[in-house]
Amino acid sequence: MTLYLVGLGLDDEKDITVKGLEIVKRSDLVYLEHYTSILGIEKETLEKFYAKPVLLADRGLVETRAEEELLLPAKTKDVALLVVGDPFGATTHTDLVLRAGALGVRVEIVHNASIMDAVGEIGLERYKYGKTTSIPFWDEGFEPETAYGVIKENAARGCHTLCLLDIKVAEPSKEDLLKGAEGKAVQPRFMTVNEALKILLEIEKRRNEGVLSPDTLAVGVARLGQRDHVIVAAPIGVLLAHDFGAPLHSLIVPGTLQAMEEEALVRWKIA
Amino acid sequence: MTLYLVGLGLDDEKDITVKGLEIVKRSDLVYLEHYTSILGIEKETLEKFYAKPVLLADRGLVETRAEEELLLPAKTKDVALLVVGDPFGATTHTDLVLRAGALGVRVEIVHNASIMDAVGEIGLERYKYGKTTSIPFWDEGFEPETAYGVIKENAARGCHTLCLLDIKVAEPSKEDLLKGAEGKAVQPRFMTVNEALKILLEIEKRRNEGVLSPDTLAVGVARLGQRDHVIVAAPIGVLLAHDFGAPLHSLIVPGTLQAMEEEALVRWKIA
Repeated sequence: MTLYLVGLGLDDEKDITVKGLEIVKRSDLVYLEHYTSILGIEKETLEKFYAKPVLLADRGLVETRAEEELLLPAKTKDVALLVVGDPFGATTHTDLVLRAGALGVRVEIVHNASIMDAVGEIGLERYKYGKTTSIPFWDEGFEPETAYGVIKENAARGCHTLCLLDIKVAEPSKEDLLKGAEGKAVQPRFMTVNEALKILLEIEKRRNEGVLSPDTLAVGVARLGQRDHVIVAAPIGVLLAHDFGAPLHSLIVPGTLQAMEEEALVRWKIA
Repeated sequence: MTLYLVGLGLDDEKDITVKGLEIVKRSDLVYLEHYTSILGIEKETLEKFYAKPVLLADRGLVETRAEEELLLPAKTKDVALLVVGDPFGATTHTDLVLRAGALGVRVEIVHNASIMDAVGEIGLERYKYGKTTSIPFWDEGFEPETAYGVIKENAARGCHTLCLLDIKVAEPSKEDLLKGAEGKAVQPRFMTVNEALKILLEIEKRRNEGVLSPDTLAVGVARLGQRDHVIVAAPIGVLLAHDFGAPLHSLIVPGTLQAMEEEALVRWKIA
């Protein structure tokens, strides 16, 4: 009779905690939240490992239909909502927890590693990261410059900036919405390091505040926290042409570097 | 023939990941790093759960004697170093990883939840946290004011500040050092929320920059990520008198609050 928010960590089916696995095994309903992040493995691998079916939970289910599909069922059953990374990682599920509280539904959280932990592998000091930002896909009439401002402010304090790159999974397109086909899934779309850098350079061109140039050192990462992760430290001009492969990608713009941080970055430099 | 850095998460023996547990079970040597954080459970509970001995690794072992005790053994054996939270959480073990690389020792990281994840339970947006800071114990001639400056800068940008509070575990005192008793363990000492707030108010008194007062809303937390965690949101004047119980304690100074963040904090308010 509990709604469990269970973090899955970042790599494969074995990154769930022992506690999390016990909960999944005894839950009556198991959902996998798959719109704010994605796993490096297939849903079927999870189902085999858990020996039970896993239902996909899209944004509509978690946000619009949460009451019917997650919260009320959790009054009489154990319902597990699996979240890639930590349940309060890049996207907090605070709204869901507050709604559960209002309905008198018991909630239990099982934490796990998020991208904020995996980023430590790069070797830049954790306490020197400033505010985290995200870079959304640009669309007609929607060309946000927030990330540029955050990088600028962090850099002014010598701080590093972690930029989370946009994911669009199973959401209806504008055209679908106009046609009323709200539930229709579209092809997943992930922003690459290259696309993110192009957006940042375009903002630099518009604002001309000297925050970034093709010579600025940045760190592009793909599949961080997964076994086949890629980490490359190079000037933006070089990173623009680098193929990081499969999603998810993220971008780090370092601030002032200490000696050990310089030494750590040497491992990721390319010619 | 690998040095594994395995995160243990924050609560009990079952917060290790399935992958981490498999590694511990097949490792020849298992160390528990116990000077940058502590577990909510005893070492004996871990030993029973793993069915093998766990050796305590103090700062001297991980920093000064790492080569003999961790790195060279990992050339011929599987050595697991267990770290509370994530291996790259509040304290990055980057130095150890770089030294391993220089010696040609293979390193594998198993991530887990850190305090940076657990802090999400409070309900303040993750992306609105600015730079994290720490508050060390003051000592004669050592009265750092760094945290105050970080809170001020974060607040100016509307950002929340997570303050990690000092831990002193198994380190020799000044007197012991003078006597040459470097290896002698002393009683563990943990900074309470109350002590941290007193230090911040003392800095305010000295600098008078209007960053904090007894009326400033703050969030004191204890044992975050553990089952018996305590979260209290109240003016600093009220928090000063609140008993948060057993360690570890942390402190959050919120920046500008959005409607959902206000609603989230209501759950933790006391009269």
